[in-house]
Amino acid sequence: MTIHIQEVIPRDGFQMENKFIPTEDKIKTINRISRTGVSKIEVTSFVSPKAVPQLSDAEEVAKNIDRNDAIIYVGLVANLRGAERATDAGLDEINLVMSASASHNKKNVNKTHEESLEEFAKIAEFVKGSGIKINGTVATAFGCPFEGAISEKAVMDFIRKYIDLGMDSITLADTTGMANPNQIKRFITDVKASFEDTPLTLHLHDTRGMGLANLLAGIEAGVNRFDSAIGGIGGCPFAPGASGNICTEDVVHMLGEMGIPHTVDLDEVIAISKELPNIIGRSDYPGQVVKAGKVSDLHEF
Amino acid sequence: MTIHIQEVIPRDGFQMENKFIPTEDKIKTINRISRTGVSKIEVTSFVSPKAVPQLSDAEEVAKNIDRNDAIIYVGLVANLRGAERATDAGLDEINLVMSASASHNKKNVNKTHEESLEEFAKIAEFVKGSGIKINGTVATAFGCPFEGAISEKAVMDFIRKYIDLGMDSITLADTTGMANPNQIKRFITDVKASFEDTPLTLHLHDTRGMGLANLLAGIEAGVNRFDSAIGGIGGCPFAPGASGNICTEDVVHMLGEMGIPHTVDLDEVIAISKELPNIIGRSDYPGQVVKAGKVSDLHEF
Repeated sequence: MTIHIQEVIPRDGFQMENKFIPTEDKIKTINRISRTGVSKIEVTSFVSPKAVPQLSDAEEVAKNIDRNDAIIYVGLVANLRGAERATDAGLDEINLVMSASASHNKKNVNKTHEESLEEFAKIAEFVKGSGIKINGTVATAFGCPFEGAISEKAVMDFIRKYIDLGMDSITLADTTGMANPNQIKRFITDVKASFEDTPLTLHLHDTRGMGLANLLAGIEAGVNRFDSAIGGIGGCPFAPGASGNICTEDVVHMLGEMGIPHTVDLDEVIAISKELPNIIGRSDYPGQVVKAGKVSDLHEF
Repeated sequence: MTIHIQEVIPRDGFQMENKFIPTEDKIKTINRISRTGVSKIEVTSFVSPKAVPQLSDAEEVAKNIDRNDAIIYVGLVANLRGAERATDAGLDEINLVMSASASHNKKNVNKTHEESLEEFAKIAEFVKGSGIKINGTVATAFGCPFEGAISEKAVMDFIRKYIDLGMDSITLADTTGMANPNQIKRFITDVKASFEDTPLTLHLHDTRGMGLANLLAGIEAGVNRFDSAIGGIGGCPFAPGASGNICTEDVVHMLGEMGIPHTVDLDEVIAISKELPNIIGRSDYPGQVVKAGKVSDLHEF
């Protein structure tokens, strides 16, 4: 089983930075990521510039990147207007997000579950026949920072609803890093058994240090698609200073050390991570391999 | 299987700090750790104060801590003189370290393997009948920063020699964080099968982000004793800025979330970690749970 890495730094990473990343830097970074062997890139978010000012240049970014035909370019979308914008910008895939937790969904997109699903139905109708794919994300699928434990049955029901709406693939997101490896292995084994024909991505955060262990638990449960962010940036506003998304170069390095097949050029990903201080204006990002070097980087005696 | 946590911050943590931790702070910290439910505490190192000035107060620390009968208090020792000092200071156990890598052993203790083993034989003879236990550590057991891969057969041979010398227990140390979960699971399964009657500790570092995944691989291979350091401090001089020892509170938090039995009071360990800035004079230590909170720490909507 080959593991597919889906890079989310342009969206989940850059949107959490205090500094607005210049459009030109975003485009350069995405173009460089396009040459690393990742399978998908979440390019930007087509939401209100008031809600996410860091990604207010969504169209300009999406329209001006160099496209690699081997890569699926994704835009996060919150409503029909966003889907129209992502389509106009020529992206391959739309990512729709609803939180399994009602309170988190209200906080995140100011919608009830019913309102989110109604909007998703309109988007699915709009996209139909266009060739654009839809990925449905269930956020807070492993725990909610307001409500705690999440009903696995509820998550299963949302996946079923997504598939009924015609979505092509599913992402389960550990939005605030609350999952543990036993939970991932047990629950995802069930999910894979119930929805074996639907491509499944795990979107993991390393908020409490369990990110890479959770990824391995996901692989054991049969998952071969993972979102990650170079440098491990991104994350949630409830844990200032905590780690964000699982770190692309740390993931790829571990897979390589373990002999697990993947398609990513580790050295190039590390090189991009080393450029991050020039892009995000800070060097305190969580990535470990970029600080310690690869296991194979030996030292002079 | 209950997991035993062995706290190494007073030795592996404090010895790597640039700042000398005042003796009084060391004693207070050890006393507080003694009330957390850990199984062992590595209190200090009886080596040359020139080599490790940060632990030049070894006797004063070891003699003035409050002892909890449920805890084994350990001193790291490099030679017979050190063993005499540790014995005089009343510690329960002596920890002897030799690197599986010849070059790392030369760099670390300026000895060949033969010279290390000769010294260990003298120490074993000295300690015999005293009631003091000896733990033998094979450092760089999973990789050497100078030589790269380490012969697993060589590590097995060193374990055999340690046992022949009368050592009571063994530690395999991933001194510079080079191990990966597949390697741990495969090799440690072999080690456990070959030395089933000898208590085995894994001493893991999180240098490249694989620390907690390696711990879980160790548990799968049957290991129930792990060294860790509150805050995740410590580490190796080759990776400035990288994570050090696996972080006690992150380990205990993960075990609790996974329902794996252990004996440690997580809240008390987190409380000690939160005191670290006052002890080590910096707040940029790697521990994640101390920044993000426990999974069970819910937020107001």
